[in-house]
Amino acid sequence: AVHKIAVIGGDGIGPEVIEHAIRAAEAAARKYDGAELQWTRLPWSTAYYKQHGRMLPADGWEQLTAYEAILFGAVGDPSVPDKVTVHELLLPMRRKYDQYVNLRPAYLFAGVDCPLKNKKPGDIDMLVYRENTEGEYAPVGGNLYPGTENQIAVQTGVFTWKGCERILRAAFEAAQKRPRKKLTSITKSNAQVYGLGLWDDVYNAVRKDYPDVTSNSLLVDAAAMDFVRQPEVFDVVVASNLFGDILTDLSAAVAGSIGLASSANINPTKKFPSMFEPVHGSAPDIAGKGIANPLAAVLSAALMLDHLGLAKSAQGVRDAVAKVLAEGKVRTRDLDKTSTHTTTDMGDAVVAAV
Amino acid sequence: AVHKIAVIGGDGIGPEVIEHAIRAAEAAARKYDGAELQWTRLPWSTAYYKQHGRMLPADGWEQLTAYEAILFGAVGDPSVPDKVTVHELLLPMRRKYDQYVNLRPAYLFAGVDCPLKNKKPGDIDMLVYRENTEGEYAPVGGNLYPGTENQIAVQTGVFTWKGCERILRAAFEAAQKRPRKKLTSITKSNAQVYGLGLWDDVYNAVRKDYPDVTSNSLLVDAAAMDFVRQPEVFDVVVASNLFGDILTDLSAAVAGSIGLASSANINPTKKFPSMFEPVHGSAPDIAGKGIANPLAAVLSAALMLDHLGLAKSAQGVRDAVAKVLAEGKVRTRDLDKTSTHTTTDMGDAVVAAV
Ligand SMILES: CC(C)[C@H](C(=O)O)[C@@H](O)C(=O)O
Ligand SMILES: CC(C)[C@H](C(=O)O)[C@@H](O)C(=O)O
Repeated sequence: AVHKIAVIGGDGIGPEVIEHAIRAAEAAARKYDGAELQWTRLPWSTAYYKQHGRMLPADGWEQLTAYEAILFGAVGDPSVPDKVTVHELLLPMRRKYDQYVNLRPAYLFAGVDCPLKNKKPGDIDMLVYRENTEGEYAPVGGNLYPGTENQIAVQTGVFTWKGCERILRAAFEAAQKRPRKKLTSITKSNAQVYGLGLWDDVYNAVRKDYPDVTSNSLLVDAAAMDFVRQPEVFDVVVASNLFGDILTDLSAAVAGSIGLASSANINPTKKFPSMFEPVHGSAPDIAGKGIANPLAAVLSAALMLDHLGLAKSAQGVRDAVAKVLAEGKVRTRDLDKTSTHTTTDMGDAVVAAV
Repeated sequence: AVHKIAVIGGDGIGPEVIEHAIRAAEAAARKYDGAELQWTRLPWSTAYYKQHGRMLPADGWEQLTAYEAILFGAVGDPSVPDKVTVHELLLPMRRKYDQYVNLRPAYLFAGVDCPLKNKKPGDIDMLVYRENTEGEYAPVGGNLYPGTENQIAVQTGVFTWKGCERILRAAFEAAQKRPRKKLTSITKSNAQVYGLGLWDDVYNAVRKDYPDVTSNSLLVDAAAMDFVRQPEVFDVVVASNLFGDILTDLSAAVAGSIGLASSANINPTKKFPSMFEPVHGSAPDIAGKGIANPLAAVLSAALMLDHLGLAKSAQGVRDAVAKVLAEGKVRTRDLDKTSTHTTTDMGDAVVAAV
């Protein structure tokens, strides 16, 4: 079968890293599943915006529905407000295509220096399930008396029973398939009684259906502390949109580098394409230098292969990444400050290992 | 002068640790400033609630206004919902008395084991200024179709120009007095355009008045990462209510122990009493065992002495704590898992060092 994939490199280091994700995924898909991947590169980005006055063509959203998956680099450029780059492309994509599962693994690979003391490879091994369509990211709010000292802004988080239920169930189902079968639900209902109160109610209702999963509820502040004190206790973590955002950057840091943090924005119904992107952004400070770590993009492509049903290929990519990291011959600067290896060196090493 | 202080030990380890904070503050105030502190212990707590059906007497809020400061232990008990303990005592106190500055220092003391690699004493030395009266903690929101699968909860953050301005100014003024004169303003306006958009606008307006302070704006997710990767870059950090909550638990963890994290809830106008409490909660798991670390409470009492104008006494308490930690002869279990020292051992050591 041929899998049609749209590629949006986007801004900054996005296009640089994404090419290596394509190479690694292609090599693995051919070798392990005999599958063909067909790539269509779409130039939607800040550069495109500067030419056309919009981040994507008028029929862009329609165009994308022809693809099984979207491989995404990053958007964001200092010369254009986030209101354009992030709010016309990334955030609406998650909602328009109902990609309600934002899956973000954090794993401490052998060969990667952990900033925490006394952690062994594999000690950090968690999957964060982040709600990706509602909650604190709802585009709901407004301003009164703008531009005066009486200005009041309201920012409204919207939580629905169904929205909480579907991400919690996805997380519980993932936990059932893992050896430790543990789940932690993140809350802050002691302060935000409405939004997170509903989250907790759904959690308490849903957990009854998964008696084989050991689950607990943890305050987001305590979770931030425990990600540092004892990250090894976490298996599957499920969190609202904002808490998932904060905690996954934190989990990336404790697992050694944001340069290794992958993510999947999944619509499990497959009615619309799912999207796969590194957690890091466009990193304007290092863009164009050819020194970005492509592994976050490569590992995001592995999550894509999983979604396409190419589990062997996905594992092939992950094994190749693990091998390259463990050998430690090629390291980008996020992994070793003194290293001079390039994005391409790392991409080549992974393709060779596949 | 006699300073009248209300003491609310509260629940769990609250009353255990607070007595040692009283002892240390009293010894220091007498020795360094010749000042007298008069303590009034109020039994308001979950136990009080179980007897009287309320956390504090009908005229409780009025009673408290007679005091210059409130020394607070912790509230929270598994047998009673947070809706009672937290929402009838702690959170309304911050708002009723307009304690809009929540100051939370994080410092890596000599003799304290840092969970991060390669950090020396003093490498972590930040003051977090948390907005404490509005933002994401506004008690604003509600539910539609409760108890059904169509339930929708809204949780509304309310940000005012004045509310943002006063905490930002307090933080900038603190930064001016520190050697590094640096300030980081925490945002997430790339996703929450209304609430944090206003925060950013105020930050950009206010910073012009402090040209001697080097300031930057940082996304909360990136900040969580940097608290682990490079906590040494932070000097003064200023954040909204929720972001301040999360980041201060994180800063406590990277600085070695929540058992050392102090906080001040300050009304700088002194129209109402300010309140001083350890960041840790009631810790029901270790309550009554006499093993809690009293130093977070002791350091909170030092912040109180500062507020009372007894700067020498405050420094005396901090120096005593630093000495006890550096000597390392007495350590509670949060600092050393194998230790058998008690809360009282630690309290005695600090009083002796004062
Ligand atoms: C008890 C809880 C509501 C409180 C808060 O979130 O402010 C606590 O975590 C704190 O940091 O003081
Ligand atoms: C760019 C930003 C809006 C986005 C988010 O907050 O979701 C990013 O931080 C992420 O984690 O994907």
